Amino acid sequence: MRAEIITIGDELLIGQVVDTNSAFMAERLNEQGIELFQITSVHDDANHIRQAVHEALSRVEIVITTGGLGPTKDDITKHVLCDYFSTDLIPSAEVETHVRDLYRDRPDVLNRLTETQWLVPRSAIILPNRVGSAPLMCWQLPSGKLLFSLPGVPYEMEIAMREQVLPFIHRQSSAIGCQSSEITHCTVMVSGIPESSLAIHLEHFEQQLPASVHLAYLPKDGTIRLRLSAYNVAHEQVVELKAQLMNLVREWLVIDEDVPIELAVGQRLQQLGKTISTAESCTGGKLAALLNRHAGSSAWYWGSVVAYDNSVKQNVLGVKSSTLNQAGAVSEACVREMAEGVRRLCGTDYAIATSGIAGPSGGTQDKPIGTVWIAWATPTTTYAECFHLGKLRDQITDRATMRALIRLLKILQ
Amino acid sequence: MRAEIITIGDELLIGQVVDTNSAFMAERLNEQGIELFQITSVHDDANHIRQAVHEALSRVEIVITTGGLGPTKDDITKHVLCDYFSTDLIPSAEVETHVRDLYRDRPDVLNRLTETQWLVPRSAIILPNRVGSAPLMCWQLPSGKLLFSLPGVPYEMEIAMREQVLPFIHRQSSAIGCQSSEITHCTVMVSGIPESSLAIHLEHFEQQLPASVHLAYLPKDGTIRLRLSAYNVAHEQVVELKAQLMNLVREWLVIDEDVPIELAVGQRLQQLGKTISTAESCTGGKLAALLNRHAGSSAWYWGSVVAYDNSVKQNVLGVKSSTLNQAGAVSEACVREMAEGVRRLCGTDYAIATSGIAGPSGGTQDKPIGTVWIAWATPTTTYAECFHLGKLRDQITDRATMRALIRLLKILQ
Repeated sequence: MRAEIITIGDELLIGQVVDTNSAFMAERLNEQGIELFQITSVHDDANHIRQAVHEALSRVEIVITTGGLGPTKDDITKHVLCDYFSTDLIPSAEVETHVRDLYRDRPDVLNRLTETQWLVPRSAIILPNRVGSAPLMCWQLPSGKLLFSLPGVPYEMEIAMREQVLPFIHRQSSAIGCQSSEITHCTVMVSGIPESSLAIHLEHFEQQLPASVHLAYLPKDGTIRLRLSAYNVAHEQVVELKAQLMNLVREWLVIDEDVPIELAVGQRLQQLGKTISTAESCTGGKLAALLNRHAGSSAWYWGSVVAYDNSVKQNVLGVKSSTLNQAGAVSEACVREMAEGVRRLCGTDYAIATSGIAGPSGGTQDKPIGTVWIAWATPTTTYAECFHLGKLRDQITDRATMRALIRLLKILQ
Repeated sequence: MRAEIITIGDELLIGQVVDTNSAFMAERLNEQGIELFQITSVHDDANHIRQAVHEALSRVEIVITTGGLGPTKDDITKHVLCDYFSTDLIPSAEVETHVRDLYRDRPDVLNRLTETQWLVPRSAIILPNRVGSAPLMCWQLPSGKLLFSLPGVPYEMEIAMREQVLPFIHRQSSAIGCQSSEITHCTVMVSGIPESSLAIHLEHFEQQLPASVHLAYLPKDGTIRLRLSAYNVAHEQVVELKAQLMNLVREWLVIDEDVPIELAVGQRLQQLGKTISTAESCTGGKLAALLNRHAGSSAWYWGSVVAYDNSVKQNVLGVKSSTLNQAGAVSEACVREMAEGVRRLCGTDYAIATSGIAGPSGGTQDKPIGTVWIAWATPTTTYAECFHLGKLRDQITDRATMRALIRLLKILQ
């Protein structure tokens, strides 16, 4: 069973908005054994939308569109689909009740444009949109193929996918006339070896993989995720291949499953019953925001000091003025004092500190742009390490964040 | 002149990676007056890539592919394009010199897979990739149409676009055989009015727009960006339309240009010669990371305390234990003390504090999930306000970050 996504909106094609919806939908479809064949982004243009829908429906069994369902004039998806399926709009009492209920405390929203939200295509199956006003629409073709039209607002689309679209596809799977595959992805993350050297190291392993199992390399921020994708392969065989792969990369292995590194760190801290804080200069809060991104992080993440200015390093973290004067803010001595200072201040078991030159200015002969010192304070000792992480601001801070978490994970293991 | 982007890689179609490249490329193309017609994401599959390239070249004048240029076995774009253009690979001395130079300090990378990077298609024009090993390839068809193949690594693609692809297109524009349009986008950001009410308010303005000018509504995190897009319209006329629009939305106007709000805040602080710090509980460092995201922020952003645990609120920020015991961490009294505490601690002119219930647990009858208190400390007074920002963790913290910056901008004006 194969699917395509069509994302609709001029904002995507002028680069005003990054399409995060497609990755979410792709992951959910894959989990259900549905292969996503193509993603197509098109303008808010009737002909273009119609053509993209037509072509996608000719290629695959399931087509999901997002976007263009708002109440304003630039939202045309509902009208285009009515035209494509030769149907008209009729009022839906159910959708009206839902929308009135949704805006119970906000009577100013119940105007004549909002009222158009409860007009629905006569031939569509309407699925409830629990958190928004645009009805979720679905058409089933005589061939069994399905077309869904979902809102582009990420929160609404995510709930619609989980609660409505995937269960609907599951219920209709026999009518769609083809089977979903058993798709298994196994991912491990390694660090400390160039991609090409890793590929040579894994050449024999890769050559002897069955044709239905594929190995992919995803380099990012100084790490490489290795993904084994298996189609209709017995679970035991995939487990065995993953074990072989892990054995081959043991030396560089960071994480043996597909979880974000901050979550792996959190899980480990929680197991140990330990807590962490951070003191950040060049990473500027990126470490903190990552560490408390997931629900439940309050059990092990206690706090951070973003010490961008030297006065904050000194007055809040207790970095000595002699350290700042002699070694400078980007130095081993400074990150050690920062890490130990924030550990003491927040009363945590572990702490990480970063200080570096993210550019575009501030580089010197001795400390060129990309120089980053990181320290890890533990209950027994403090480690520090210097890195050279490239030339571009975002690249440097992303890589520094990653290095900080990789070493922390090793310390915790 | 129209373009299409084809992004290549299984990681996009299984949702392992969000495609941020397309938005960057779209924005750059638009700036050059080149309309991006469609974005298509396809698998690392030879037939699929070939077909996507063929169809895109039949529709538009410029096609740019990204991805699939690495040294590993899953990277097949170069071979597929050789096949499509019926050419073969030959060694390039220039690329070899560049790659050897790039890895001068890392001899372990110069292995036989890396050596394949200096094999280039005989019929392609090779453009230099200053920061990576994969050569940038370009083909010009007899019709003048152009196909570019760029790496998928964002840093490499961005530099390739700016330094090579756009100048190349500019030089070739007469050979491509059609003109770039004069595309003007004007964006303003408003807050405090529902999208549908705004659309009714602007109905008359929208109806009397010339056919070549389009108004779009982009709601996000409790704000709406209004974008006027004009194609081949005189600059003075666009300026006049924007002035009319701004006049109509003056009551809800937050920013009158298309800059991210954190940059508008920074520019204002810099003009005033003032500084800011943040004390964050529920936003957990998001405010800090946003405020220091752009180069030059060290002039006005001094530091932050992420006080996730109450002990940090108390011991670092000086929130009174009686406040935490009586009013609780999510209260007006607490955020006021947090804001004033961090302002004092970091010695800044302004400070923002956030404390809220981001869920999924921790909600009560009195303070349901989504309750967020925000305080703004200024040299003369401290403001505080309570918000109800939805039910989902990311939604709540994103909206709280936005609310904090919107009100700060108003205070600074």
